[in-house]
Amino acid sequence: MLKYQEVADRIELAIKNKKLSQGTRLPSLNELILKYDVSKTTLVKALTTLEDKGIIYQVQGSGIFVRRQKRDGYIALMTNMGFTKDLENNKLSTKVIDLRIEMPNAEVARELNCAPGEEVYFIKRIRYVDNNVLCIEQSYFRKKIVPYLNKEIISESIFNYLTEVLKLKIGFSDKYLRTDILKEAETKLLELPKKSPGLYIDELFYTASGEPFDLSQTIYNYKHANFFIQSGQK
Amino acid sequence: MLKYQEVADRIELAIKNKKLSQGTRLPSLNELILKYDVSKTTLVKALTTLEDKGIIYQVQGSGIFVRRQKRDGYIALMTNMGFTKDLENNKLSTKVIDLRIEMPNAEVARELNCAPGEEVYFIKRIRYVDNNVLCIEQSYFRKKIVPYLNKEIISESIFNYLTEVLKLKIGFSDKYLRTDILKEAETKLLELPKKSPGLYIDELFYTASGEPFDLSQTIYNYKHANFFIQSGQK
Repeated sequence: MLKYQEVADRIELAIKNKKLSQGTRLPSLNELILKYDVSKTTLVKALTTLEDKGIIYQVQGSGIFVRRQKRDGYIALMTNMGFTKDLENNKLSTKVIDLRIEMPNAEVARELNCAPGEEVYFIKRIRYVDNNVLCIEQSYFRKKIVPYLNKEIISESIFNYLTEVLKLKIGFSDKYLRTDILKEAETKLLELPKKSPGLYIDELFYTASGEPFDLSQTIYNYKHANFFIQSGQK
Repeated sequence: MLKYQEVADRIELAIKNKKLSQGTRLPSLNELILKYDVSKTTLVKALTTLEDKGIIYQVQGSGIFVRRQKRDGYIALMTNMGFTKDLENNKLSTKVIDLRIEMPNAEVARELNCAPGEEVYFIKRIRYVDNNVLCIEQSYFRKKIVPYLNKEIISESIFNYLTEVLKLKIGFSDKYLRTDILKEAETKLLELPKKSPGLYIDELFYTASGEPFDLSQTIYNYKHANFFIQSGQK
């Protein structure tokens, strides 16, 4: 992890642990430089990152202030690390519906930038929060980048496995979000009446070096999914 | 505007104007420093901001690359400037349903941090995109911060008026998003069948100095609203 990211994480953790409320003034730039024992450039980068993440806001000539924290149980839409961390106060579980290696269809191959003949893992899971169906999740992983998956691994947080076991450096993602009337098969899996609303999120994840590796569609149960977005100052 | 934001905006505009595709390598750090005639610190801050906004990604030891641009007609969920800019290729129009000055109820007063006896503007509008109903929008503006609104002003982009006429410095916003079955009155305004799905976004906007000034609820027509989110590297 880069130095400025480490400092940003430490400041963020301190804000969360102390439960600092919206508008609380943080120590000055110079005090923070001394406290974290880093250069001005590093601290400025750390603060810019925290500002862009919606953790703090800076008022010129006035100081550095804490922003409101998200409501408990809401899923942050700005991150690309799945919702395991957002729902850490809730009981999460997973049911695996499908897991296989296959040749991607043309659309999947194009989105994932697959070479001809390149295989993908296809997985389908139902995720539960506090024993309620939270979502159906369908993903294609490039086998070239994620060489091994099994039922046990995908019964837990796949992102923890990718980062901690495979040491994959996850970069960023593009998300597309829309609401629609659920198809009948989807309502069955989500345990909802026919023609209920559904929230669809299509997401393409990239490694830190910019290679796409995971194309996912997640369909959320509207009764149990609430989302949070903090918009930055730019 | 701060120097680094100006440089960030110029780089972003250059990427958009040249329609650079995902993975295109930008000039090196040193070349960009020369090109924009700024210090290394300013350029690094500009690049960090562009990275956090999802415009570029940086690969250590390899370079600075362009990220995929959003699909046309999608509304970016990371910004706090309304959707006028996202839908600039579409025909936007507005119908004003309500506009009045009133005393806020307890919840609105609490969210907006109103002093006792402080008044708010209440406005309700229907927004159209290419003659289709895009959303219903209900907002409370603190009169202390937005002293004057009229029907003509709110028939256009309120955010343009706030920033260009009132010279208000808009800071950031907290957004909460969920899907639900529309109420009957909402389906009428959205011109949808009864019990259609709706996408609800509650948003609280702050000035750059951290004062809340606008509490809004927007209900989107699922047939005409698609959203886009770029997640950063953090």
